[in-house]
Amino acid sequence: MTAPASLDPLFYPRSIAIIGASSDARKIGGLPVHLSKLRGYSSPIYPVNPGSPEIQGLKAYPSVAAIDGPVDCAVVAVPAPLVLGAIEDCARKKVRVAVVFSSGFAEAGEEGKRNQDRLAAIAREADMRVIGPNAMGAFSLEPGFIATFTTAFEHHGGKGFPEIGPVSLASQSGAIGIHVMVMLRERGLGLSKWVTTGNQSDIEVSDCISYFAADAKTKTIVAYIEGAKNGRKLADALALARANGKPVVVLKVGTSETGALATAAHTASLAGSDVAYDTLFRQHGAYRASTLAELVDVVAALQHGRYPRERSVGFVSISGGVGALMADKAEAIGLSVPAMPDAAQERMKVISPLAGPRNPIDTAAPGMSDMKMTLSFIETAIADGNYASLCAFLTHLAYIDRHFTVLRPGLMAIRKKYSDRIIALSMTLPADIRNALEKDGFIVCDDPSRAVECVGALWRIGEALRTAAAKAAPPSVPAGALAPARGAAGEQAALAVLASAGIPVVPHAAAESAEDAAAAAARIGFPVALKLASPDIAHKSDIGGVALGLRSAAEVEEAFAAVMARAKKAAPGARLDGVTIARMVSGGVETIMGVNRDPVLGPLVMFGMGGIFVEVFRDVAFRVAPFGIDEAHAMIREIKGFPLLDGARGRPKADVDALANALARLSAYAAANADALQSVDVNPFIVLPNGEGGFAVDALVVPRAETASGSH
Amino acid sequence: MTAPASLDPLFYPRSIAIIGASSDARKIGGLPVHLSKLRGYSSPIYPVNPGSPEIQGLKAYPSVAAIDGPVDCAVVAVPAPLVLGAIEDCARKKVRVAVVFSSGFAEAGEEGKRNQDRLAAIAREADMRVIGPNAMGAFSLEPGFIATFTTAFEHHGGKGFPEIGPVSLASQSGAIGIHVMVMLRERGLGLSKWVTTGNQSDIEVSDCISYFAADAKTKTIVAYIEGAKNGRKLADALALARANGKPVVVLKVGTSETGALATAAHTASLAGSDVAYDTLFRQHGAYRASTLAELVDVVAALQHGRYPRERSVGFVSISGGVGALMADKAEAIGLSVPAMPDAAQERMKVISPLAGPRNPIDTAAPGMSDMKMTLSFIETAIADGNYASLCAFLTHLAYIDRHFTVLRPGLMAIRKKYSDRIIALSMTLPADIRNALEKDGFIVCDDPSRAVECVGALWRIGEALRTAAAKAAPPSVPAGALAPARGAAGEQAALAVLASAGIPVVPHAAAESAEDAAAAAARIGFPVALKLASPDIAHKSDIGGVALGLRSAAEVEEAFAAVMARAKKAAPGARLDGVTIARMVSGGVETIMGVNRDPVLGPLVMFGMGGIFVEVFRDVAFRVAPFGIDEAHAMIREIKGFPLLDGARGRPKADVDALANALARLSAYAAANADALQSVDVNPFIVLPNGEGGFAVDALVVPRAETASGSH
Repeated sequence: MTAPASLDPLFYPRSIAIIGASSDARKIGGLPVHLSKLRGYSSPIYPVNPGSPEIQGLKAYPSVAAIDGPVDCAVVAVPAPLVLGAIEDCARKKVRVAVVFSSGFAEAGEEGKRNQDRLAAIAREADMRVIGPNAMGAFSLEPGFIATFTTAFEHHGGKGFPEIGPVSLASQSGAIGIHVMVMLRERGLGLSKWVTTGNQSDIEVSDCISYFAADAKTKTIVAYIEGAKNGRKLADALALARANGKPVVVLKVGTSETGALATAAHTASLAGSDVAYDTLFRQHGAYRASTLAELVDVVAALQHGRYPRERSVGFVSISGGVGALMADKAEAIGLSVPAMPDAAQERMKVISPLAGPRNPIDTAAPGMSDMKMTLSFIETAIADGNYASLCAFLTHLAYIDRHFTVLRPGLMAIRKKYSDRIIALSMTLPADIRNALEKDGFIVCDDPSRAVECVGALWRIGEALRTAAAKAAPPSVPAGALAPARGAAGEQAALAVLASAGIPVVPHAAAESAEDAAAAAARIGFPVALKLASPDIAHKSDIGGVALGLRSAAEVEEAFAAVMARAKKAAPGARLDGVTIARMVSGGVETIMGVNRDPVLGPLVMFGMGGIFVEVFRDVAFRVAPFGIDEAHAMIREIKGFPLLDGARGRPKADVDALANALARLSAYAAANADALQSVDVNPFIVLPNGEGGFAVDALVVPRAETASGSH
Repeated sequence: MTAPASLDPLFYPRSIAIIGASSDARKIGGLPVHLSKLRGYSSPIYPVNPGSPEIQGLKAYPSVAAIDGPVDCAVVAVPAPLVLGAIEDCARKKVRVAVVFSSGFAEAGEEGKRNQDRLAAIAREADMRVIGPNAMGAFSLEPGFIATFTTAFEHHGGKGFPEIGPVSLASQSGAIGIHVMVMLRERGLGLSKWVTTGNQSDIEVSDCISYFAADAKTKTIVAYIEGAKNGRKLADALALARANGKPVVVLKVGTSETGALATAAHTASLAGSDVAYDTLFRQHGAYRASTLAELVDVVAALQHGRYPRERSVGFVSISGGVGALMADKAEAIGLSVPAMPDAAQERMKVISPLAGPRNPIDTAAPGMSDMKMTLSFIETAIADGNYASLCAFLTHLAYIDRHFTVLRPGLMAIRKKYSDRIIALSMTLPADIRNALEKDGFIVCDDPSRAVECVGALWRIGEALRTAAAKAAPPSVPAGALAPARGAAGEQAALAVLASAGIPVVPHAAAESAEDAAAAAARIGFPVALKLASPDIAHKSDIGGVALGLRSAAEVEEAFAAVMARAKKAAPGARLDGVTIARMVSGGVETIMGVNRDPVLGPLVMFGMGGIFVEVFRDVAFRVAPFGIDEAHAMIREIKGFPLLDGARGRPKADVDALANALARLSAYAAANADALQSVDVNPFIVLPNGEGGFAVDALVVPRAETASGSH
């Protein structure tokens, strides 16, 4: 798997043109020239400005056409009305990537949207890639190509560049891209490539993630996403990064209604539902940070390329209280806090009689004055506790020279000796010391809870990278599976679709007369349910169209007549296609499963316990289709109501294998019919006791064309 | 309401003795002498050391008895074996408060516990208050009394003292007390009083909160609590602070099992359940921070003494993405994000055509270069949006001098003009600028989500302070309410207790024969339930001791015989006291309510929807008893299942007033019988449709002596 070659000219251009170049190094058209020179970009720079023969000491050109060599990348820094002309010039010049700063396109209204479409069409025709328009551009520190107009490099007296390092960042928002860059820089973290995609007329954040996934200089990928145009491309990019062992830390806004609305207004794009993105990120092993601060802390923690081999974490704290605080956080995020072996506990008690040696380990007061003891406790925890990760709370010790001069080399020796372990330090300390400790391979957070969160993030990311290859494949869809056809949304048709997709359905039969119904019931076996079949009546139980628990042919015949009479009275003129006779089951657990087409990310599979559990308690789990049996099992175990399937309150354990199998098959069917399917609603899917299977009892399949828009 | 006078000698001593004083200013016995001198403590300091006639330039005394004046406060810094002697000396000298640094007491095992009890007894006898033992002591910056041995004042070349300011802090843990002090100091926040209570043989954090609540120099109270000895005292302290308009920010560890275990080991105290503490804090308006970092940020936000008048918050962001991120957080924590008025939106669009003027307000790119425009957007949001709070995301602008020299005075002018509003800034900036902005009345957080959290905290704290006086009083317990008597835990006795407490119970009657049962059923009205009454059979339905839905006298008589026969067979020799006949109700919603005695905080009232909702979904709400009708309403609305009472899925709305009334009455009864009551379990309490009331159908009342230990 290789990255799309077409982004090389953006990050490693062999020549660049700046269209609308300015002699003023602070102007939007002057900055790329100034900054690329400053950073030693060594290939040709061609300023384009019809009014100046020379720009910032470089020969300038009156037009793109006049440039005497080929141009890999062109920066477009002209007012909106001049942009289309510049893009046409670039296309003729066979420029390979254009970076369009100019705003006034899709974000500005209908006319802007048309101009942007035109821009994209010209570029596509010429096989030219485009960043933007309305983008803050990109930079690539190794070659020194700085195609952005941010003022952030002015900081610190003009020394505002980050170091060169292994983090690459792609952001849909320029402001967030720069803000994160500044935060990483202040943290002392190095960057390789930085790109903001603005209106994404061509290149999306997904493309950049794919490029970074294959880029040898990038070890960690940071992404800020508001909405993707193509969910499959995003999923593939995340999968590629995971397969190549590169962690992706992502921030996505729009968890709230107001936030989602703001994002939609801001990007002029259809965002897709937040739950679908959240599901996609988790399924593909991307770590979703919920705040900018968490994002930066997790990126810092990833720099050492170490992941905990398992969940266990040991705590050494000069404060019993902070030890407990860290243990609280660890358990809340799914880490484990096993006790130290007894022998080691006894040794620690000999060293410090008032110590709490269990885990969290409390050095007690001597930990504040006897650094050798504190160090020996840390090493004992790592060596004898054999924890995958260790968090040490060392409060303000870095401010006390006589202690820190002992502590610092001691910690470093432990860091070297136990090179496979995660070691996180929580200390209040000056930024320069923090940055130095981070460079030496420690996670450092002043807040102890955040230190634990970073360990949790590493564990989850490590797990995702380790299991990339081990995921079960989605089941294959049976040959001859029915398509979700228009007008076939009735219960019988829906059950037929499910059955054709390999999902077990309740034994049932259609019947057009009372006699047929009684005969069908006899074949299926009593008791049965009788349900009205009519393409015109959606909610059959509301009009008395359902009779349950019928125990004899006579009861079935009587129910047939009653149901038909009620239907004719309630809905005169409705087409009545007889009834469905279905076996009544008892002793199972009612669940529901469904599919909804997300406008961006495609079919999203839902699972829950049905009824009030879904409607009132919102106790549901989601996955992007398709997925395999292991993911289905994880999904089932995600809901709070899982104990109801697992023998809670003296019930028999339900056949969760059969349920998982049905969910995986439903996901495979949904993915195979992604373009044709709007939604599936299986309600209920009854899960029988272990070994007895389960089946869909009622269902609705809605093909895509039947609804006007996405369901979210 | 005044503070206990007995803590004045701790925070404003008129003379101090240091027992175990050292000439070495870095030793535990040297530091209080050195630091108090350094800080200009101007009343007499009496070092006590039998080996030196002079300590650090002061006359030293061979014993406490030899001191020639009275001693208000004595610091005890001698090894554990000498402590009891020193305390006896202090008692004889009529010392008013002793601060005992020495460890080796309750935290060290049984013998230490005995010595600590002896220490407390000596002090109590002499009317002397005690901090510790095993405490890091206290300091009070106004008089310059520094009775602690922390090394934190060594920081910054010996300039590690915080400024004098309005925050006072009480911490059970010395290490956490110091860590928070350092964090507040680095934030530029001033302290008044600081105290760590160690083993709390006498003075608890609760006592200190009460003192701070009445202390004119304290405006904000910070508390770290692991476990209280007396929940009532803690509740009273929090209530006093609230009544006096002083916010309390509290950190408490032990939310997880491991954390709680660690805390218990650490403090050698019975901690009480975390949920009980959490409930207590919320009921009394204390803000519980979940991390040290949040604690410090919220304390910083409280310094300006401003609270939002209501939930609305406006956002101005130079990044649409961050605006959405902040709106997401605001909605998640219960703030509201109303849109700007249309006219103001149109004005903003004129100023910046690409702006998003709704709320969150996006300045678009010009916000990064045109500071006057950014400032006008902020002022427009405040003036025209009329938000109680405003959050502005200004990214890295403080690093760019030419912009910040415009922004800073502009912000200040807005701050002055709209003095009643909360203004929070989210910026990445150097610590000194952050501290200066905070001093000028802004909330400043580099993380935008945290800035929103601070606004949310201010809103919640402000609400709590505003509503302190407005809470409905708990109902009074009816005269003649029955006590929870031993041996009367059966259903009929329990229902009698509830009825006597003013809680409606199902119409029911006892019957000892089939004929009696049939007659009772006729009086009560069919259908009825018949339930075995036996003091020896706890789970009557397990042995077939319950018959439901009996519709006639004949059915009742038949059921009586059947139940008795089953009981005799299942439990030969059990005492059978006949049956209870109770009316069967339909159409109601089943809920459960209960009381459990927390070992520290007393009776805790629980409410939930019963069955799997409680057992599987843990959907329950708690309150510390007693409480009034408004708190009961809040409690009912807290559970996720509330829609089931509020007409979800086409049900009739239930009589929530009747339910709230019953909960408040149960709480009043529990509080009035706190010492005698272990638990109450009302299961179910059926709530009928609105206007029809509700009643307890079955119950269990367990008096305290019947169980060996606390129920948590």
